[in-house]
Amino acid sequence: MIKILNYSEINGANIFSRETSSSGVEDIVSEILRNVKEKKDAALLDYCAQFDGTAPEALEVSPEEIQEAFAAVDNKFVNILKKASENITTFHSCQVRNSFILNECKGVITGQKVVPLDKVGLYVPGGTATYPSSVLMNCLPAKIAGVKEIIMVTPAKYGKINPIILVAAKIAGVDRIFKAGGAQAIAALAYGTETIPKVDKIVGPGNAFVAEAKKQVFGVVDIDMIAGPSEILIVADQTCNAHYIAADMLSQAEHDKMASAVLITDSPELAQTVSLELENQLSLLPREEIARCSIENNGKIIITRDIETAIDMANEIAPEHLELCLDNPFDYLDRIRHAGSVFMGKNCPEALGDYFAGPNHTLPTNGTARFSSPLSVDDFVKKYQYTYYTKSALSKVADDIAYFAEQEGLLAHARSVTVRFDE
Amino acid sequence: MIKILNYSEINGANIFSRETSSSGVEDIVSEILRNVKEKKDAALLDYCAQFDGTAPEALEVSPEEIQEAFAAVDNKFVNILKKASENITTFHSCQVRNSFILNECKGVITGQKVVPLDKVGLYVPGGTATYPSSVLMNCLPAKIAGVKEIIMVTPAKYGKINPIILVAAKIAGVDRIFKAGGAQAIAALAYGTETIPKVDKIVGPGNAFVAEAKKQVFGVVDIDMIAGPSEILIVADQTCNAHYIAADMLSQAEHDKMASAVLITDSPELAQTVSLELENQLSLLPREEIARCSIENNGKIIITRDIETAIDMANEIAPEHLELCLDNPFDYLDRIRHAGSVFMGKNCPEALGDYFAGPNHTLPTNGTARFSSPLSVDDFVKKYQYTYYTKSALSKVADDIAYFAEQEGLLAHARSVTVRFDE
Repeated sequence: MIKILNYSEINGANIFSRETSSSGVEDIVSEILRNVKEKKDAALLDYCAQFDGTAPEALEVSPEEIQEAFAAVDNKFVNILKKASENITTFHSCQVRNSFILNECKGVITGQKVVPLDKVGLYVPGGTATYPSSVLMNCLPAKIAGVKEIIMVTPAKYGKINPIILVAAKIAGVDRIFKAGGAQAIAALAYGTETIPKVDKIVGPGNAFVAEAKKQVFGVVDIDMIAGPSEILIVADQTCNAHYIAADMLSQAEHDKMASAVLITDSPELAQTVSLELENQLSLLPREEIARCSIENNGKIIITRDIETAIDMANEIAPEHLELCLDNPFDYLDRIRHAGSVFMGKNCPEALGDYFAGPNHTLPTNGTARFSSPLSVDDFVKKYQYTYYTKSALSKVADDIAYFAEQEGLLAHARSVTVRFDE
Repeated sequence: MIKILNYSEINGANIFSRETSSSGVEDIVSEILRNVKEKKDAALLDYCAQFDGTAPEALEVSPEEIQEAFAAVDNKFVNILKKASENITTFHSCQVRNSFILNECKGVITGQKVVPLDKVGLYVPGGTATYPSSVLMNCLPAKIAGVKEIIMVTPAKYGKINPIILVAAKIAGVDRIFKAGGAQAIAALAYGTETIPKVDKIVGPGNAFVAEAKKQVFGVVDIDMIAGPSEILIVADQTCNAHYIAADMLSQAEHDKMASAVLITDSPELAQTVSLELENQLSLLPREEIARCSIENNGKIIITRDIETAIDMANEIAPEHLELCLDNPFDYLDRIRHAGSVFMGKNCPEALGDYFAGPNHTLPTNGTARFSSPLSVDDFVKKYQYTYYTKSALSKVADDIAYFAEQEGLLAHARSVTVRFDE
């Protein structure tokens, strides 16, 4: 059974914090990185043989393999992938930013240019979880940003990649796909090998080894956030259908045992009925064991005084996913400050956002929504500034700059300006 | 003397890479962080006594101390600080982004809200280098972003803070100032103490201990980039004045011995005259020893075939500062992809940007301009997404979403949608 608590028993900010341990991973990963950096393809192929059952004949996926994948996936799913891509593209296109230029004084120009990254690497996990939605959510913002080359890596168990991953990659516009997974694939993207190009940024989810590898190569290349276990916080009042809420909580709980689903409500009755509904619905799930473990260990129902308090708690918790199961969710929009993705109203299950609506599903976890954002087009561009002054414009501010530099004790700074006016 | 090399001898991407070692710092810093996290103000005051000569009577700077600082700083400098602030404000105001909302289908709303961070901590170094320009460059973008509270920490040697730092802080709009420096001040901002509030993000430069402390608290709070030693790359042709170029190179070199100034030119004559000019001008500098060490160890003049090649090298190097000392710098703007801040033309010494023109002076170093950006308003906001569907709108896509979820093997995801239409 899920725990039911009163809000006075809760330290809001820590509600989703769980112990994650990855002892030993660090050293294994740093050895893999070192090996691939030195021996490149040779090391990579060795690791493929060791971890994926076989070293692929060619690391790069061929056009024929893509064709075969399309033949193997039913048309209905191809069309759904295309519809989802359209929605994701429409939403993320609003994130595109223009460069700007200022020229308010004679002879003075300053500006900021927005430039897409040259090359981005996209990690796609293999194994039990096959998530074509992640391919769309990670690739499309990069595509919209104008990244020149998007390079995907994914493990090929016994030489094969799940065809729905290949189809999603093609629809999303991935440029090249390589058969490599784990820390070794991250190393290949960070350092480059004879076959796999070095990239500027690596994005995408992965297991503990992949996450550790991304941490270790950060600085050599950029990385996206290291996502923690997934979380949902649902705020609901007594008008809500317990059946729906339990279903939404379980959609989070089935991800993995570390996932966490929390309901905050001002209705003790709703708390009771959701608790019973969870038990009823758990037994219907193929992934019952995982979901039950998540609900029993990390799940909570918290009873608050009123919905205002629940909203305050939501801001303090800064959840990855926030469902406002209320009749008038837009009344509360201005109050929401800290969350990754907000699902407004009673007909907006998180799954709508995981796959389809358009906003990204790569979101800040574990309270980091206080300062982090969902993956977006911004993650695939960078900016630089520029400044132009004519000699006459510089002459008007030269003394001020020199005086400023002198105050900081940097005389060569001052000289670099005044030298232009020495005769 | 500075080294003069042919471009064929150069591996562009590594031109600014220098060994930086900070052995031993890690353990010292983690102990300081642990202590301040546990014992809060008490530990902080102990460290102040140990490192700054005295524990201040009150950690927070009082309004009287601010008044005294204004009395101690000459009016001319106050006015220059205000003018610089205006320029920085004008430039950074162009970076402010609007939220957006999409409502293209009946019953479907998606949007992205841009929200300023709640609390930001600003580290300002004490010691020999007193940089009021850093106070302006770090604080003003946060202010423009709408950050609710900007909290500055800076070491007070024997209880005193340099008055120009206090004046700059006040002009830039810092809300509260505390007398604390080093790793212990970073710990106070990351964890909070009885006196110093916990913040969401820490920005600002600092020594090796401060940099290491920022790295270690990253995740608990956000941090800005960890800046490496400063760099300038100057691209110049035979029409340039060697006198000016040498002065610009020395303005970089005087920062510290690790700083690095590199000239790329297609003119062997210019290379020679700049080399001689450097020697002449070095002897004029109060910080000659530092500048000479930087020029001799890290400085270079590279002779290329032509300016096109020089621009290609600049992109490969992705320098922090790039001066295009050319008659027609705007002809090359579209070619520039990777740099922090670009100074266009012959009358745009870097010092103009360090203090005055408006663009930020906190810039990506060591090649990270390939994927990182200058400090900007973006660093002080975060975004969240929201989604609203009516039941009718959800009904139209329910089957597609359920099918998508089934393909990923996540049946509870599918159920969370279909359950709303079971009767």
